[in-house]
Amino acid sequence: MPLCGHDHTPLVHRINRIEGQVKGLRKMVEDDRDCFDVLKQIAATNGAVRALGMAILEEHLKGCIAGAPKEGHPGDQEELIRQVVDLFNKFS
Amino acid sequence: MPLCGHDHTPLVHRINRIEGQVKGLRKMVEDDRDCFDVLKQIAATNGAVRALGMAILEEHLKGCIAGAPKEGHPGDQEELIRQVVDLFNKFS
Amino acid sequence: MPLCGHDHTPLVHRINRIEGQVKGLRKMVEDDRDCFDVLKQIAATNGAVRALGMAILEEHLKGCIAGAPKEGHPGDQEELIRQVVDLFNKFS
Amino acid sequence: MPLCGHDHTPLVHRINRIEGQVKGLRKMVEDDRDCFDVLKQIAATNGAVRALGMAILEEHLKGCIAGAPKEGHPGDQEELIRQVVDLFNKFS
Repeated sequence: MPLCGHDHTPLVHRINRIEGQVKGLRKMVEDDRDCFDVLKQIAATNGAVRALGMAILEEHLKGCIAGAPKEGHPGDQEELIRQVVDLFNKFS
Repeated sequence: MPLCGHDHTPLVHRINRIEGQVKGLRKMVEDDRDCFDVLKQIAATNGAVRALGMAILEEHLKGCIAGAPKEGHPGDQEELIRQVVDLFNKFS
Repeated sequence: MPLCGHDHTPLVHRINRIEGQVKGLRKMVEDDRDCFDVLKQIAATNGAVRALGMAILEEHLKGCIAGAPKEGHPGDQEELIRQVVDLFNKFS
Repeated sequence: MPLCGHDHTPLVHRINRIEGQVKGLRKMVEDDRDCFDVLKQIAATNGAVRALGMAILEEHLKGCIAGAPKEGHPGDQEELIRQVVDLFNKFS
């Protein structure tokens, strides 16, 4: 389902903030900032990307998976859940 | 130490690619793409940010920490290592 | 739902193997084994605990959450999904 | 270096507590406890294993790596740091 019925606006705002963090990171590197400060900025960016992923994952579970046909269909609930847990595993 | 003696160019290229992933993610959201595809793009972005962090962490350990005064100084090796392990804990 | 209808036997076997890894780890420490080898054993144990968590999470999503009342009830699907995503955030 | 000069006693105590968590987990499974409670116990065990790993990693960086020959030797600092960052990546 397209974005599980998500409203785009707050997601786009979050992504804009992440883009700002990435641009800030590039500027820190270009300005030759202290290595540990660069690492802190990367950790913050990583946290923001991960939190966005968790928010969308939650909506995906609520909106797409909960509404899928239970089993014995292509794209059924069991299959969707398996996919999402596989993806979970890549998230960190 | 400013970026632990890192050459900026490859880092800036990696950051540019991450910025491209973030822009691609926003476009997917605006285009109302399938929720699971959006999650895959977020997982890929997360992986790229984390890999960048690990690369800089490695250089930080080699370049800054290894060269710091061993102990009994402000900013000595013990303190720097403690900081970096704390930071690592936030990385995932 | 008690263990989401899971068969206990394979889970108990996995937990037994994890217990064996933890005992092996203690023996390595008592035998004063190389620090990096100890770290590798900890990473392997961590991976086994996490994989067990993911397997049970998958069954939990399939068995408990999918079958819960959709909304407007105590312990409904929305609430259960929120809880499980919160928990996932602690998993790494 | 054997355990980087670590005192064994507190490490063995931590490992004993982790073993207790794993035994508790098995009992929960055998007693057919609620699936979400089992997941919480797994998350707690995972956190304890990871925290132990971070503590040993910190000592490893301070004790073994900081004292290694800088470069151009087998098992030199650069090589040890590369290994430890690779291991980091498996920790979550």
